[in-house]
Amino acid sequence: MNELKNDRFLRACLRQEVDRTPVWMMRQAGRYLPEYRTTRQRAGGFLKLCKTPELACEVTLQPVDILGVDAAILFSDILVVPEAMGMELTFGAGEGPKFPQPVSSRADVDALPVPDPEAELGYVMQAVETIQRGLAGRVPLIGFSGSPWTLATYMVEGGGSKNYAKIKGMAYNEPAVMHALLEKLADAVAAYLNAQIAHGVQAVQIFDTWGGILSTRDYKEFSLQYMQRIIEQLNRESRGRRVPVILYTKGGMGWLEAIADSGCDVVGLDWTIDIDMARQRIGHKVALQGNMDPAMLYARPERIRQEVKDILARFGHGSGHVFNLGHGITPDVPVEHAKAFITAVQQESCRYHG
Amino acid sequence: MNELKNDRFLRACLRQEVDRTPVWMMRQAGRYLPEYRTTRQRAGGFLKLCKTPELACEVTLQPVDILGVDAAILFSDILVVPEAMGMELTFGAGEGPKFPQPVSSRADVDALPVPDPEAELGYVMQAVETIQRGLAGRVPLIGFSGSPWTLATYMVEGGGSKNYAKIKGMAYNEPAVMHALLEKLADAVAAYLNAQIAHGVQAVQIFDTWGGILSTRDYKEFSLQYMQRIIEQLNRESRGRRVPVILYTKGGMGWLEAIADSGCDVVGLDWTIDIDMARQRIGHKVALQGNMDPAMLYARPERIRQEVKDILARFGHGSGHVFNLGHGITPDVPVEHAKAFITAVQQESCRYHG
Repeated sequence: MNELKNDRFLRACLRQEVDRTPVWMMRQAGRYLPEYRTTRQRAGGFLKLCKTPELACEVTLQPVDILGVDAAILFSDILVVPEAMGMELTFGAGEGPKFPQPVSSRADVDALPVPDPEAELGYVMQAVETIQRGLAGRVPLIGFSGSPWTLATYMVEGGGSKNYAKIKGMAYNEPAVMHALLEKLADAVAAYLNAQIAHGVQAVQIFDTWGGILSTRDYKEFSLQYMQRIIEQLNRESRGRRVPVILYTKGGMGWLEAIADSGCDVVGLDWTIDIDMARQRIGHKVALQGNMDPAMLYARPERIRQEVKDILARFGHGSGHVFNLGHGITPDVPVEHAKAFITAVQQESCRYHG
Repeated sequence: MNELKNDRFLRACLRQEVDRTPVWMMRQAGRYLPEYRTTRQRAGGFLKLCKTPELACEVTLQPVDILGVDAAILFSDILVVPEAMGMELTFGAGEGPKFPQPVSSRADVDALPVPDPEAELGYVMQAVETIQRGLAGRVPLIGFSGSPWTLATYMVEGGGSKNYAKIKGMAYNEPAVMHALLEKLADAVAAYLNAQIAHGVQAVQIFDTWGGILSTRDYKEFSLQYMQRIIEQLNRESRGRRVPVILYTKGGMGWLEAIADSGCDVVGLDWTIDIDMARQRIGHKVALQGNMDPAMLYARPERIRQEVKDILARFGHGSGHVFNLGHGITPDVPVEHAKAFITAVQQESCRYHG
């Protein structure tokens, strides 16, 4: 692997000094980029794009080339893990993901294998290597996975959900079945992330998109506990460098202290909390990633810059901040606004360092 | 108006002693009840049900008769206020509400009148009086409205939304227009709630369903500020009794202190926060309403009872707790489970009082 030319992102994750605040965007390889839409069409669909290493590489690099972000994130989908466990996965046109045969019983859980990532998810490992060759050390590559709870939500609901009747019914009525599923997923995710690390990702993020639908006690029991189980199993060193772990729970603002105690290096914040408050609460333990409202990208560039300045000022002086949105960039954002965001962070953040 | 036979709910709202914890459910007059579905069909649709005082009364009384809740809540919809301001409102079959001509400019805002509730919302006032005759003092009647921010969200988006691009675009790009709309809505809602109080409701709840999509500073600027403006204008005494004000922000667990300082008597909690933590933070100032996960009603009755016991124990001894769900009851809940919930609160809560 090439020597890393820009390690701001990795340094900030570990609260080491940087010249300016690094920035990337969740879902930065996405539909708001015309180049992404072209590649996706060429691939013949979203899942095919995920499974074709050259094309996954192409879209992973696009935001690095076009926007100048400080980190690339592997292009993939969180649901390739349940698919690798034998669950049929479909993405209908204009629809969300679907599992036509959802998990609903102890027998279903027992029948799920823990996949070998080198075999069943080999295309992801190839993508990681292809991307690293393409990056040639320009910026670090982030790997990722969904959290066990978030994966389980899709696997039990059979897709997206409004009321979460099935997954919560399982958690409340059959907690032992729920725990068996989450345990299996935690081990599958740990093996998957370790394989990504072995093949070259330099940091990993766990996306807990649906942890925020739980009560505090259920979050700890059904979501956080299993993310901790993953973190304990991860190889935190690779090629002589620490591999930072980022934990992002959407809607987790009430649980920051517990999240910071999970063993992660970085806590991903959604936009509902002020970052100065988050730094006050957990900034002595972990770095923070976030947290501009993704909808701010609908505003005019000068308003976006004002918001960037406000967030930088709230975080204040010193390292330990990876600038990002508080959730993924949405498909209908003008590219110029995304560029204005990245540029504003790059230009405005120097004064808080050195 | 008849003398009130059961005033537990009103007393708990004001943190006065009660014999047991009062309980009601958000959306308790709703589709999970077969009786509701029958009446709605007879009415010929949801909006007609809202606008026919006798039928609105019928469904308002159903949960009192069938479940034995300690309060009735006026059956209506938050969007009747924008409709009374001249906006066409439609509910398509199986669809959410739609405003075919959404608000998008300063001129649109200026053109909206502040409605006279006695005239444009006279059917609501008739419903309040009809319901009070039907209740005959059995339990108090709660009136309600959407928060200005929540109403504005529907009015600007033209219906439900996923990314809130339009309302946030307005808030970020045209804050003066946004504030003009919210100011007008606050005054409209204050007049509307005061009319409900004059016609006989004994408490009011402000539903801030979409406040939780905002950042902390935007929540205070665009949502909480206007709820405070309403509260300042409300008649807090009626027929010799204080009229409690309940403020419910879904996703507001990070902002409880600010909400408790709004002048409300009761803070409605969603299910994501543990009620013992909420009591510790704001229980010396206000009563708390909530906060069982509505999805707990998918669990078996014995699990529901266990959860009720847990929440009661967490709140602990003394008054100041109105038991409720953390959000509205969902249509696919078995009626028996709703009954089990109400009964469990009634049976298990005595030990925490007297």
